[in-house]
Amino acid sequence: MNQILASVQDDIHYRFKQVKLLELALAHSSWANEQGCPELSNERLEFLGDAVLELCVSEEAYRRFPDSAEGLLTKLRSRLVKTSTLACVARGLGLDRRMLLGKGEEAQGGRERDSLLADALEALFGAVFLDGGFAAAQELVLRLLDPLWPETPALPGGKDCKSRLQELTQEHFRQRPVYALVESSGPEHHKTFEVEAQLPDGQRFRASGPSLKKAEQAAAQVAIHALSSTRSQDK
Amino acid sequence: MNQILASVQDDIHYRFKQVKLLELALAHSSWANEQGCPELSNERLEFLGDAVLELCVSEEAYRRFPDSAEGLLTKLRSRLVKTSTLACVARGLGLDRRMLLGKGEEAQGGRERDSLLADALEALFGAVFLDGGFAAAQELVLRLLDPLWPETPALPGGKDCKSRLQELTQEHFRQRPVYALVESSGPEHHKTFEVEAQLPDGQRFRASGPSLKKAEQAAAQVAIHALSSTRSQDK
Repeated sequence: MNQILASVQDDIHYRFKQVKLLELALAHSSWANEQGCPELSNERLEFLGDAVLELCVSEEAYRRFPDSAEGLLTKLRSRLVKTSTLACVARGLGLDRRMLLGKGEEAQGGRERDSLLADALEALFGAVFLDGGFAAAQELVLRLLDPLWPETPALPGGKDCKSRLQELTQEHFRQRPVYALVESSGPEHHKTFEVEAQLPDGQRFRASGPSLKKAEQAAAQVAIHALSSTRSQDK
Repeated sequence: MNQILASVQDDIHYRFKQVKLLELALAHSSWANEQGCPELSNERLEFLGDAVLELCVSEEAYRRFPDSAEGLLTKLRSRLVKTSTLACVARGLGLDRRMLLGKGEEAQGGRERDSLLADALEALFGAVFLDGGFAAAQELVLRLLDPLWPETPALPGGKDCKSRLQELTQEHFRQRPVYALVESSGPEHHKTFEVEAQLPDGQRFRASGPSLKKAEQAAAQVAIHALSSTRSQDK
């Protein structure tokens, strides 16, 4: 467990003062129930983190689009915080491998389920908020969601990670990224796909998902996150 | 207008660095449209303030009730941030008198409408958040809503202001407050009632509302707010 906690902190570039909060964020209720301690589930943190996420995205929308009416901002916010988007970000952080699940939930493919992944990500935001305050949580939320903002609020759908990575690599290297299936495993009815995104400069980023498409999106998210971390260190 | 802005700041115990934000928070879209400047409406600030309020109440619920499950916290939060509750707080702050309304909205009794008042209060939270950061907004939200928290999260309805004021005056003076109708004015179909809450020690607090009941609740809110400000200064 300590290794998992260390690697999540490395990946989110945030060091917890109270690492128990991070452990709680990763604990699905099925795992907590199996331990006989329902209070060790991430549901309360998810309740809090959902509100943290909502405020961070609202403020960013308010600032990015000073001329947009409230109705448009509301729609944009819904697109950015929707379950499938959050699940993609969670996969990019490897939360799918690192969540604590009960055996029953595991057997039913819970590790690949968008809703569980989105909840774990929200719980993580809640944990950082309690541990480091609003500014720390805001920094994390905005960094992770940064690639997903559209140029204008009216653009449908928000940008998916593959489109955004393609833009970035075109900009940097004038070429597209390439995706390769590394492995598919597990029984036929809930296979896991592991995919590698290869950038034109040779960098490779892996992630997995319950379909080829979701695994590619997750690998793109890992790559974007790595690129934007490098760029923010360069600044 | 300057006098209105000064008195709101006195009443909320917060001094704006950017007083334009406060003016924006008070401006209903009907007023902005009448000025020919739709961008001068409080709708975008309300979008932001709604999320500020949600996070402040979520965190406070999380902290006050460490043993309550997420489902119960969600229900409690909905009760605390519901329109009629926020409108009562807004009346207690005199936002009904101070909102900027267009002539049509004014003629249709908009000044007494719960939804407009709740929106103005949320916009005020958004304005303080932008002006002073999360901590300043949180301090204001928690101070204004403090009287409304139930002892346990499962209690139905959250406490209304009259019940809470009665508890406080019983505690301090072993007597109940008394309410008196000072004046009712306006045409029959949308009368305004002005009510005075009298405390056993002689203090009097006035507020108005579109019904006797709402005016009494608003006067109770003013009284509670004054009592809790005095107590926090005593500490």
